[in-house]
Amino acid sequence: MYAGKYRFSRRAEVLGKSVYDHAEGAIMLSVGSAYPPILPDLSREASDSAKAYVAEVMQYGPLMGLADLREAISDYVAADGVKCTPNEVLITNGAKHATDLACRVFTEPGDKIIVTAPTYMTTLQCLRSHGLTFVAIPQDKDGMRTDILAARLATMRANGDALPKLLFDVPDFHNPTGITMSLERRKALLALAEEYDFVLIEDDPYRRIRFEGDPVPPIKSMDANGRVIAVGTVSKILAPGLRVGWAIGPNEIVRRMAMQKADGGSCPFTQRLVVDAIRSNKLAEHIDLVTDHMRVHRDTMIDALAEFLPDAQVRRPNGGYFLWAELPEGVSGDALAEKAVEHGVEIGSGRLCFPNEDPGNFIRFSYSYVDPNTIREGIRRLGEAYRNMAIAA
Amino acid sequence: MYAGKYRFSRRAEVLGKSVYDHAEGAIMLSVGSAYPPILPDLSREASDSAKAYVAEVMQYGPLMGLADLREAISDYVAADGVKCTPNEVLITNGAKHATDLACRVFTEPGDKIIVTAPTYMTTLQCLRSHGLTFVAIPQDKDGMRTDILAARLATMRANGDALPKLLFDVPDFHNPTGITMSLERRKALLALAEEYDFVLIEDDPYRRIRFEGDPVPPIKSMDANGRVIAVGTVSKILAPGLRVGWAIGPNEIVRRMAMQKADGGSCPFTQRLVVDAIRSNKLAEHIDLVTDHMRVHRDTMIDALAEFLPDAQVRRPNGGYFLWAELPEGVSGDALAEKAVEHGVEIGSGRLCFPNEDPGNFIRFSYSYVDPNTIREGIRRLGEAYRNMAIAA
Repeated sequence: MYAGKYRFSRRAEVLGKSVYDHAEGAIMLSVGSAYPPILPDLSREASDSAKAYVAEVMQYGPLMGLADLREAISDYVAADGVKCTPNEVLITNGAKHATDLACRVFTEPGDKIIVTAPTYMTTLQCLRSHGLTFVAIPQDKDGMRTDILAARLATMRANGDALPKLLFDVPDFHNPTGITMSLERRKALLALAEEYDFVLIEDDPYRRIRFEGDPVPPIKSMDANGRVIAVGTVSKILAPGLRVGWAIGPNEIVRRMAMQKADGGSCPFTQRLVVDAIRSNKLAEHIDLVTDHMRVHRDTMIDALAEFLPDAQVRRPNGGYFLWAELPEGVSGDALAEKAVEHGVEIGSGRLCFPNEDPGNFIRFSYSYVDPNTIREGIRRLGEAYRNMAIAA
Repeated sequence: MYAGKYRFSRRAEVLGKSVYDHAEGAIMLSVGSAYPPILPDLSREASDSAKAYVAEVMQYGPLMGLADLREAISDYVAADGVKCTPNEVLITNGAKHATDLACRVFTEPGDKIIVTAPTYMTTLQCLRSHGLTFVAIPQDKDGMRTDILAARLATMRANGDALPKLLFDVPDFHNPTGITMSLERRKALLALAEEYDFVLIEDDPYRRIRFEGDPVPPIKSMDANGRVIAVGTVSKILAPGLRVGWAIGPNEIVRRMAMQKADGGSCPFTQRLVVDAIRSNKLAEHIDLVTDHMRVHRDTMIDALAEFLPDAQVRRPNGGYFLWAELPEGVSGDALAEKAVEHGVEIGSGRLCFPNEDPGNFIRFSYSYVDPNTIREGIRRLGEAYRNMAIAA
């Protein structure tokens, strides 16, 4: 009745109104949601907090977040070599919220941001809503190609072009490719941030979900000059429903980010639950549990792809929630995603993850949400869809 | 160490980095926080929800909000004569978040928005962060002067100026003036929205906190043509810590607002607690409790002002959380607020509530947060500060 009647903003047109409708009844290999059978029981913590901390958890919370949580987070990241005071920790409603606040603090419409191609699709939407344009840099097995980035920046400077103010990346178990950036590249990125005066958003939801191999130090742990905003969340390690994340950066920056919160401060109740989970060691135990399950999920999905869709080339990630698959050249990821729905399985077309040009033949999988038998059945159906598509073509 | 080193955005400079530092140890007559002695005990609901609804409350929630809550809210507002389907209800992280999302969906930097002068100070900050400029309209005892607004709009149209896309107002127990808009003015506003093609944000946190007199129908209840986004919250009627609010409007609009959420959806856990509180009648009982206490708080503050600061002219509100006081001409609200801190009481200078020019001699009080004895003591100190200021001048 009202369609087309309103004068919507440009950013409203960019993001549209789909509210992520999913394919009804399909096996969901497309969403990085938590694995339902191991969602934590926080009923004891919830009841205790609602009673013992009523004046805190039912009241407006401080814009920066609860002091106890900011301290607990600074302890939590210390184990990764990140040194920060609680004053440098801002609590947010999840990691994406932190990235949005960083964009609010640093960018104007038309500004450039450096991202990998591909990168995290939902963050791309957020960056687009800020009117940003993309300096898109490819990856190899060691992460973002810093040599290519350096060359691009040098050219931009030589041409007198406006230089990017921000860089966004997921250096550990990258979403969607699963790649972990090498130490050398991390150092190179930091050096470029210094040389070209940009701030680096290190989005790190997956670091602790490591299946094998040794961790690489976070970029933030090497950040001597306040060039990095380290972004984290409990969504992938405890429960997305809590909506608790954080940004760690110079107080000058995170205070300004706090001022841009549009919602009167993050929920103090769920913040208190996270403090409790960290202090009681429940978080650490839950991370082990998630890691054990996700390892099996990854293996199941890789094996099933080898069996049912051997044409897809997949890189084996050492952690995280995602697989990234390359289809033979000329095979459309969009078309396969569409056909897959007819066969009762939902996957993500790689197109959603590319900031600018889409090579066209990539697929994003998440193995986090459904159980191993269903993963296998989903990939079996996908293989069927793939063969039907080939026959039709 | 890093100060001045970063290239911050314009909106970061507008909002600054104060994160609302309060005067340490002062009596707080400046904040619309909940009254601590009556904060609800939701420990039973929290424990039940964390157990019985674990797959819902610990997981990502739908961007639009929980279906049960959207239904409960549509029932809740039906009592005020607002007819809407759950499809027209978007759950947000409080009322301010809803206003921010509406700005994201409708405005570009430089656009105009209609507001009362004075208006809600924190929303002003949010509107400024969107780069909006203000069409500021005065109020009388019946609310926004729609005759003045009509004349301004007619002039703008005649001059070929860009017309405002949005209007923001708090028609019930206005923040900060406490005024309730008359039925006639509400109808006039709706007619102007039709005539000049703008969307009206009806911010309504206080409606149910009525001390005496009869309610006036919400503007939304008369909105035949989808011109109104009705914004609500449980912050003033149950608990601000839950961070649960809503926006009611045409599905075309609220779907687009959902897409602009930067945080992966509002917290499903606290949403479930609100569903529970509505269904168990706990919310209705709590509204009665809050209303009884706030009536005493209002009376106490008005009596104390008559005793200790008779120079201040105050309008008696029939509900809500705030008092608005006019000082004699030439007496500075800023100076009194500053002097008040020296005397151990924090009030808000009226300046913060004015979109454009500040008459200079207004004060905003909130009576919600401290108990009646402390309200009286706070106003006694303020009277002392006022007399000291007069002696110094």
